[in-house]
Amino acid sequence: MNQANTFYSRPVIALMTDFGIGDGDVGVMKGVIAGILPDAHIIDITHHVAPQNVLSGAWILAAGYHYFPKNTVFVCVVDPGVGSTRAAIAVHAGDWYFVGPDNGLFSYVMSEQPIHAAVLLANSSYHLPTVSSTFHGRDIFAPVGAYLARGLTDIFFELGPSVDPAALRRLEVGDIVHVDNFGNLITSIPLTLVPELYTLSQVQIVLKDKGITVEKLRQYFAEGPDDGQAFIYGDSSGYVGIAVRNGNAAKTLGVGFGAPIALITSEG
Amino acid sequence: MNQANTFYSRPVIALMTDFGIGDGDVGVMKGVIAGILPDAHIIDITHHVAPQNVLSGAWILAAGYHYFPKNTVFVCVVDPGVGSTRAAIAVHAGDWYFVGPDNGLFSYVMSEQPIHAAVLLANSSYHLPTVSSTFHGRDIFAPVGAYLARGLTDIFFELGPSVDPAALRRLEVGDIVHVDNFGNLITSIPLTLVPELYTLSQVQIVLKDKGITVEKLRQYFAEGPDDGQAFIYGDSSGYVGIAVRNGNAAKTLGVGFGAPIALITSEG
Amino acid sequence: MNQANTFYSRPVIALMTDFGIGDGDVGVMKGVIAGILPDAHIIDITHHVAPQNVLSGAWILAAGYHYFPKNTVFVCVVDPGVGSTRAAIAVHAGDWYFVGPDNGLFSYVMSEQPIHAAVLLANSSYHLPTVSSTFHGRDIFAPVGAYLARGLTDIFFELGPSVDPAALRRLEVGDIVHVDNFGNLITSIPLTLVPELYTLSQVQIVLKDKGITVEKLRQYFAEGPDDGQAFIYGDSSGYVGIAVRNGNAAKTLGVGFGAPIALITSEG
Repeated sequence: MNQANTFYSRPVIALMTDFGIGDGDVGVMKGVIAGILPDAHIIDITHHVAPQNVLSGAWILAAGYHYFPKNTVFVCVVDPGVGSTRAAIAVHAGDWYFVGPDNGLFSYVMSEQPIHAAVLLANSSYHLPTVSSTFHGRDIFAPVGAYLARGLTDIFFELGPSVDPAALRRLEVGDIVHVDNFGNLITSIPLTLVPELYTLSQVQIVLKDKGITVEKLRQYFAEGPDDGQAFIYGDSSGYVGIAVRNGNAAKTLGVGFGAPIALITSEG
Repeated sequence: MNQANTFYSRPVIALMTDFGIGDGDVGVMKGVIAGILPDAHIIDITHHVAPQNVLSGAWILAAGYHYFPKNTVFVCVVDPGVGSTRAAIAVHAGDWYFVGPDNGLFSYVMSEQPIHAAVLLANSSYHLPTVSSTFHGRDIFAPVGAYLARGLTDIFFELGPSVDPAALRRLEVGDIVHVDNFGNLITSIPLTLVPELYTLSQVQIVLKDKGITVEKLRQYFAEGPDDGQAFIYGDSSGYVGIAVRNGNAAKTLGVGFGAPIALITSEG
Repeated sequence: MNQANTFYSRPVIALMTDFGIGDGDVGVMKGVIAGILPDAHIIDITHHVAPQNVLSGAWILAAGYHYFPKNTVFVCVVDPGVGSTRAAIAVHAGDWYFVGPDNGLFSYVMSEQPIHAAVLLANSSYHLPTVSSTFHGRDIFAPVGAYLARGLTDIFFELGPSVDPAALRRLEVGDIVHVDNFGNLITSIPLTLVPELYTLSQVQIVLKDKGITVEKLRQYFAEGPDDGQAFIYGDSSGYVGIAVRNGNAAKTLGVGFGAPIALITSEG
């Protein structure tokens, strides 16, 4: 055997999760992959994404994916919404494929690369026969990733129906640029980027330093919840703001000028 | 190179240990495997089994092995008895092979799968030339696993003499179902499952929440050790019990009703 | 597919770093390798070498490298001097290849094995197109390791100009064998091993228990720095010593008799 001169091209599957490596979950995902694609070259990006921190996962992925070879399939599972109605997706962007939940995890990749196509992972013939409600990494994402690494464009559109990439969830990153006299937090994100404020569909703002997510969305202060919880509103400055009704958001949340945020939304 | 259409079937070796990944021990095991079977697809289940916790290892393995492809060889090293007289074994159960110490680590697998055969790893031609007393993972289990993944049934019986699977050590799992007036702990495990109580061969009970192992075995209270140490006995209720002679086992051990236990025994 | 009888010899690349596995750095190195050598069998020795602890890395490597197959390429990155003028090297020693910084990391390997050749990694056509000042693991060592695993002796001398192995940095390990009346620390390392004391070229002593590195080198006490910092000198006993001018090195550094040290030097 001449190991210096003969080479075999193995399909690369890169894994990123927030599972840690203390139990066998990551190993089981690899077992599933090896059963479908014995030849896979499985590479761990990391399994120590801060738990359920989609933003952190999105950054780690963005920092590294372009160092991987063409046609690498990235199976990424940072998935606080597992078991909910959040969609499972595959995205073909640039020279790579990305498989995981539709929660913004691929935001930076999608903003950097041309998106050729995206599908919803609805075809159960590419999943394990039994799909749990809590471990889609094993039951959906690992097998889809393995089939995709094997078939690439030949099977991409068999995974499920196409979805408009513009409808996939994105993270917008910014910071707090102003705290007004009432303690309202004004962000750097212009209202024009967030039509959801007018349709009242789902938007979330993550206060990154605090690990707090603000979910409630109101057009006007007076609509804000009475319970002292922070909510998102359209500030008159033309930027997205965070407020507490009859309260002080800066004090309640413990953040101020310069605090980094991420806005999670879908344009669909 | 067309990486989408040509696939090569690589033998899978799955590793599970309590070594952690802070030093090079796991890496060295993989180096040994790669030297024997360069093409091995080595998958880490985890190396963070709680140290020397055979029960925890057995559970992690049981939760995942059936997701791995047929003919996967599991090399598992949670081995508090390394260097003692505990046997080293390979077991062919269901569609898989299991290599490791005979200490109950494969209990759940063996209770779930048909056991085709088991051997003692006595043939040193499948070990490294020098076998240490402390690192059988590197010196015995890794090379045996690599040879086995390469040869499967062709070499299984060359690894050493066959052993009756019924003689392999098993874990029985239960809990404390009663604490009597003397503080004796009565378990959920019926005496009929534990003939060792009558033959006085080796039995251990692990108090899972405490990480305590009770090893001494007596047929009668009066035989219990004088040193205040807990011992295992056959309670008149017909169940296995734990007592302290002239003492209170519940207080001494700090456990009570509902505490989970595992009983480790061999039927041989 | 008959996975038991046909085997393919894959080039093995073993990685050792102090990067940890919490972010994607190790994964990115593997992505780079897979892009150059898709068939690489990448094995992690560990990524938990104590941060920037060259000595610890050297020991971990020394404990394991000889268990790896012939022609394994070890890519090792414990590199406190990244971004400085420290050289990047590849060494062909015994049956293996070693790629990393020239800082003593391969000391024990080089003292145990015949050194066939060493080169400086000056040929940028084996690096990534853009080389950062902080992540040579990704930009230099990973691609060089992949090319080297692919080409072995065919490309070794293309990596850069040969360097005399005697000029590579080495660690000498010893301990404090005497504390004199002035608190000077006398080591077990004879002056004859350290010609640098006379040429005043670079020498470092690492106080292993404290993680302190003493860098300054003087021939005479009177030359010692005034700032209370410890320095290395040639003691009249004929051994290397550590002193503080007008001070007490034992007290200043908090070490005494028996404290382990490592001396880092180059013979060139």
